[in-house]
Amino acid sequence: MLTVAVCVALLGYLQAQELQGHVSIILMGATGDLAKKYLWQALFQLYLDEAGKGHSFSFHGAALTAPKQGQELMTKALESLSCPQDMTRSQCVELKGQFLRLSQYRQLKTAEDYRTLSKDIEAQIQQEGLREAGRIFYFSVPPFAYADIARNINSSCRPGPGTWLRVVLEKPFGHDYLSAQQLATELGSFFQEEEMYRVDHYLGKQAVAQILPFRDQNRQVLDRLWNRHHVERVEVIMKETVDAEGRTSFYEKYGVIRDTLQNHLTEILTLVAMELPREVSSSEAVLQHKLQAFRALRGLQRGSAVVGQYQTYSEQVCRELQKPDDFHSLTPTFAAVLVHVDNLRWEGVPFILMSGKALDERVGYVRVLFKNRAFCVQGERHGTSEQSPCLPRQVIFYIGHGELGHPAILVSRNLFRPTLPTQSWTEVQDRPGLRLFGRPLSDYYAYSPVREQDAYSILLSHIFHRRKESFITTENLLASWVFWTPLLDSLAREVPRIYPGGAENGHLLDFEFSGGQLSFSQQQPEQLVPGPGSAPRPSDFQVLRTTYRESPLVSAWPEELISKLAEDIEATAVQAVQRFGEFHLALSGGSSPRALFQQLATGHYGFPWAHTHLWLVDERCVPLSDPESNFQGLQAHLLQHIRIPYYNIHPMPVHLHQRLCAEEDQGAQTYAREISALVANSSFHLVLLGMGTDGHTASLFPQSPAGLDGEQLVVLTESPLRPHQRMSLSLPLINRAKKVVVLVMGRMKREITMLVSRVGHQPKKWPISGVLPKSGQLVWYMDFEAFLG
Amino acid sequence: MLTVAVCVALLGYLQAQELQGHVSIILMGATGDLAKKYLWQALFQLYLDEAGKGHSFSFHGAALTAPKQGQELMTKALESLSCPQDMTRSQCVELKGQFLRLSQYRQLKTAEDYRTLSKDIEAQIQQEGLREAGRIFYFSVPPFAYADIARNINSSCRPGPGTWLRVVLEKPFGHDYLSAQQLATELGSFFQEEEMYRVDHYLGKQAVAQILPFRDQNRQVLDRLWNRHHVERVEVIMKETVDAEGRTSFYEKYGVIRDTLQNHLTEILTLVAMELPREVSSSEAVLQHKLQAFRALRGLQRGSAVVGQYQTYSEQVCRELQKPDDFHSLTPTFAAVLVHVDNLRWEGVPFILMSGKALDERVGYVRVLFKNRAFCVQGERHGTSEQSPCLPRQVIFYIGHGELGHPAILVSRNLFRPTLPTQSWTEVQDRPGLRLFGRPLSDYYAYSPVREQDAYSILLSHIFHRRKESFITTENLLASWVFWTPLLDSLAREVPRIYPGGAENGHLLDFEFSGGQLSFSQQQPEQLVPGPGSAPRPSDFQVLRTTYRESPLVSAWPEELISKLAEDIEATAVQAVQRFGEFHLALSGGSSPRALFQQLATGHYGFPWAHTHLWLVDERCVPLSDPESNFQGLQAHLLQHIRIPYYNIHPMPVHLHQRLCAEEDQGAQTYAREISALVANSSFHLVLLGMGTDGHTASLFPQSPAGLDGEQLVVLTESPLRPHQRMSLSLPLINRAKKVVVLVMGRMKREITMLVSRVGHQPKKWPISGVLPKSGQLVWYMDFEAFLG
Repeated sequence: MLTVAVCVALLGYLQAQELQGHVSIILMGATGDLAKKYLWQALFQLYLDEAGKGHSFSFHGAALTAPKQGQELMTKALESLSCPQDMTRSQCVELKGQFLRLSQYRQLKTAEDYRTLSKDIEAQIQQEGLREAGRIFYFSVPPFAYADIARNINSSCRPGPGTWLRVVLEKPFGHDYLSAQQLATELGSFFQEEEMYRVDHYLGKQAVAQILPFRDQNRQVLDRLWNRHHVERVEVIMKETVDAEGRTSFYEKYGVIRDTLQNHLTEILTLVAMELPREVSSSEAVLQHKLQAFRALRGLQRGSAVVGQYQTYSEQVCRELQKPDDFHSLTPTFAAVLVHVDNLRWEGVPFILMSGKALDERVGYVRVLFKNRAFCVQGERHGTSEQSPCLPRQVIFYIGHGELGHPAILVSRNLFRPTLPTQSWTEVQDRPGLRLFGRPLSDYYAYSPVREQDAYSILLSHIFHRRKESFITTENLLASWVFWTPLLDSLAREVPRIYPGGAENGHLLDFEFSGGQLSFSQQQPEQLVPGPGSAPRPSDFQVLRTTYRESPLVSAWPEELISKLAEDIEATAVQAVQRFGEFHLALSGGSSPRALFQQLATGHYGFPWAHTHLWLVDERCVPLSDPESNFQGLQAHLLQHIRIPYYNIHPMPVHLHQRLCAEEDQGAQTYAREISALVANSSFHLVLLGMGTDGHTASLFPQSPAGLDGEQLVVLTESPLRPHQRMSLSLPLINRAKKVVVLVMGRMKREITMLVSRVGHQPKKWPISGVLPKSGQLVWYMDFEAFLG
Repeated sequence: MLTVAVCVALLGYLQAQELQGHVSIILMGATGDLAKKYLWQALFQLYLDEAGKGHSFSFHGAALTAPKQGQELMTKALESLSCPQDMTRSQCVELKGQFLRLSQYRQLKTAEDYRTLSKDIEAQIQQEGLREAGRIFYFSVPPFAYADIARNINSSCRPGPGTWLRVVLEKPFGHDYLSAQQLATELGSFFQEEEMYRVDHYLGKQAVAQILPFRDQNRQVLDRLWNRHHVERVEVIMKETVDAEGRTSFYEKYGVIRDTLQNHLTEILTLVAMELPREVSSSEAVLQHKLQAFRALRGLQRGSAVVGQYQTYSEQVCRELQKPDDFHSLTPTFAAVLVHVDNLRWEGVPFILMSGKALDERVGYVRVLFKNRAFCVQGERHGTSEQSPCLPRQVIFYIGHGELGHPAILVSRNLFRPTLPTQSWTEVQDRPGLRLFGRPLSDYYAYSPVREQDAYSILLSHIFHRRKESFITTENLLASWVFWTPLLDSLAREVPRIYPGGAENGHLLDFEFSGGQLSFSQQQPEQLVPGPGSAPRPSDFQVLRTTYRESPLVSAWPEELISKLAEDIEATAVQAVQRFGEFHLALSGGSSPRALFQQLATGHYGFPWAHTHLWLVDERCVPLSDPESNFQGLQAHLLQHIRIPYYNIHPMPVHLHQRLCAEEDQGAQTYAREISALVANSSFHLVLLGMGTDGHTASLFPQSPAGLDGEQLVVLTESPLRPHQRMSLSLPLINRAKKVVVLVMGRMKREITMLVSRVGHQPKKWPISGVLPKSGQLVWYMDFEAFLG
């Protein structure tokens, strides 16, 4: 009976092999570290999993080494292959033998070598009466070698029509956006997007690979919970105890952010944050949703991160890279970054990414902490049960190591009992005394994989099965660099906080976040590395009060100036609302007001928005939705953060009848009528102006034929800069205001500031000099750079 | 030397007395419980504090009791007066003697009695060569007696010109908004607002009275922290161990919400939440800001509260009020309420008010818990210090009792070191082993009053010094009832959860909140009191699919119907955006869509709002800011919760050139042009309609001369109901839509639903029957009440 069954199986096997064809896997860098440590073992695992399911295989180890020596090195690497625990010794010997027979070394150096490889593959397939299915090239080589190899594969080693090609690439995929784009463009000239598999091996770690399936299988419960209403924070953490010793030549170029945050931690973040597609088995849908998550990431700023460096790092660099003794590296070995996902699901939820070397423990995890929305009526002395709604509620994807020592998924028992695939995940035995994330292990439903699997085995299987969702697409890669590059640039000259390493770090690296900013909890204890001349801080200076063009001038460092101006505007608003029941505020566009808008949006709870009318001082003749529109700036930085009634917002009608600022549409006249109708005496309570380096203000430029005098309240003007067409309040209208404020910031304004301080009333030449409210007040706000240079 | 000093002091005293005049204090209900327990003692304290500072005093105990018996009762009450601890026995005897000599009993029953009192006061003052400063009448009597007393005082016992009158009133101040208003109107006919001092004795409790001074003195730190960005939640808690035994005749009428939440806890809440005036010593400013806080409270709904009743309460009521044995009271003895303060400072921060009898401990406190915005890098086994940023951060105003046993103010040491007035507050000694709010006492900066003072002493002093901010103004009182009455009404027939009382309550009363709703954490274990027929729950029924007027009909219970419709709209939106890059949605006003708006605003994170254009199906000819405007409903329930670009919102132009729906302003034509310009083919992707009980839809009413046919896309119409003038999309325009959805909800719609199911195409008579998209789809959504009756 057994024999018959075997024969039937064998027949089926042969038929299937016939059907599915032959796969050649070429491992480039076959004698390198990664290959020895992981890749050959993963290929063997692939063979064990897939042989007999319809494909035949051949494995080609390739490198630059000459054939004989290469073959020796490879054979040595293959000797240490191990079989799964549940396999008998004899089975193991037989299967290893099969695998070794299918594997051979090959020198790949010249185009000729590639051509030969291709011919050999074809010949062998023909000889064995097989059909070719496809070829996998695994680039386990340094990135500088990518281009040559890619060119050779593309020109000389593609399989024939009706077959597939897959190339597997290992990071680093560039150093910043530009280099990543160059590399991607180069690779794109040789391979189709669908042919490329960029590996981030974290996506093959079991707990990480389970994030989407877990979200899918527990969709019914999580649908309600997985959003800003319920999630308090998300932590994506990778702590290492090792340092960079022996690897500083690599590390010094990359640093912790490029090494782990830009790739591993960001990938994990997107798996947690992305909208869950209906079908998580659809690679296309997963990748699409993941890309959307990337695009929803709010831009990082200097204040979004803190960086550190373990104390002995610079010494190691000096030693290994032969630097002079007084060399101080600025490369961070520790970083924590606060990320916000700007969509309705995650708005306001902090995602904390943290990674570092020389810390107190080795551990990696993603922790989703839910908001505590419970109140326990009973006093504490009566105790609490593990089901108490007041205990912390969390879902943790435990990547490995740490106190637990293996991958796991933990769900607080007071949250819900999760569903996991029972054939691959099993409940963890309790280990009394073990506490994780503030609670004993027994407080969690805890699951671990039935069989621990190496990330590369999982990823090779996914490559083989074309599960592209486990890999980094070009779009995904570039989106990640778009996100990270500005922060990396702004950190380039930042002095990291020095930490002793290990448990001695104490609270030194603890950090806090608020309003998009992240900072160390403790003040810098002492400056261990001299920084490149720290600038005076705002608090080092008082606000300076003097006069400018015979009007009051307030001057300070930028931050303080904006605070002061925001306060003054609020005071004016409160006063106006008390006296008149409403406050009419006309705002300019540009970058200086943006900081003001943000300040007003986040720091002024008492601002009477409900009674405030917002008007525009000027506008570019572009649709309101155009990023260049002044209104857009207002919308992005102010309107969406405050509650101001729709009908109190008065954008300039630059876009009427589907065209822009056409004279015959009478937009300027319409706006003037609206002002006359709603603003008593057409006298705004406050007008905020800026000053251009050419002395323009509002959109009134030197020599403007309109708007500098005359009866018109609102005019169409021409800017010397694109977009040329503008709409603007006129000087006579501005001068009817009860208060006019001119905000001037930045070193660029120094010259015009000096010049305008000396000119008289020459609005034709210097429009700003025509700002002189007839019966109102004029106040200048200038930062020290604009005023003092 | 001493003698001279005493003489000088005495002269000063006499002169001051001369200057400031004489104060008469008349305590009505002088022999009642409150008087015996607190008020006489508080009057004595006032005398000790104020005598010698410029006023002379007389104290009149008054009641209905005949003079002789009354005097006896009063004398007995006065015997137990105690002196401050730091006073010698002989001083005490002397001062008590003085106070007793100044105090006399007086029967106050008839108008004549009041006249006599007034004359006697005047005569005595004249006789002693004094000047009258004013009179304080303290109403320590049941509220039904208020009106008579007030009338008598007003007509017969006011002091003369140039003097003041103050009347002090004790709660209850009504039973709901109406009764409170009646009482207030009545009192208002006798007294000026400035003459009335409504007591909420919680405002005299030391920790409560310190809330505003604390916020003021720590303004610099708190300014940054006291807002939604930093505060996680605020708990205002009053737990009692006693039950209502012996007081059920009062309690049965009031219940816990009227007894403690409407007054004490709400007052405390406003002290925490209100904007801090620049001058906290200005009564007027404080009261004004407090009133604003009241007005910012978001309306409570049935789901904002949970209620309970201790198990033996009904028995006690039966016994004390002679009810039949099967009587079950619905009066709550426990309530927890979730309050939101709808302003920019507090938006989204839960304020939890909780109070109950027969709980496990007696304690009162306000706890402001700050958000945990820290991450501690070190693993837990390395321990944490009290300064760790990861420990909870809280400010607690501890009113009294509980484990601590006295009033206190606690501030977590990892938060900031508070400033308190050192002469009246002092640091608390550590008590090892004592844990409060999850942390040892040593984790807090803890302060308690140097001298514990009774609330009534403090309040009497405030009355004497005209510090009106410690009392409830009429506006404040009515604002509080406006807030509470709807909840009380909606809870009137609610069956409270029965709890055993004391520590046995376990987790039974624990509750959770989310999205404005609050609910018990545990499912009802068993129904101990039969409820008045519980309605079937939405989940008991499936969504029903059938047809109506030959189009698909979806029917379900309201909640499920709205969910389904919201889902369907989202699916349509996603599809439209995928195909056309935008989604044009026309929405109707009214109450049914409101639930839909809320559902879309809070439950649909994937809705492509950025690409959605919102149009109005119809509008009332009122300004957009009018509460009656359909646009207002949209704004309040949808727009302010989502991020939709300003220029994608298309309100109907009913208000042009400062007038409403004037034909010559061509608003309808303008809207039609806007639609033609932006909506391809003027064919909306989805139009949401309702159906009136008269068969109208949009604002197209039976027999309408416009909009039922013809070329016009948008029309002005007349409604039979006010406001009569409307603007509406026309039937021909509606019928160009790709999809039309009609939402019909509620029993009121039952008849018209049946009727319309039978009529043919008769738009003149039943406009709704004319809804028949030419090449689009029509779907009806009706809840079971509208469809099945």
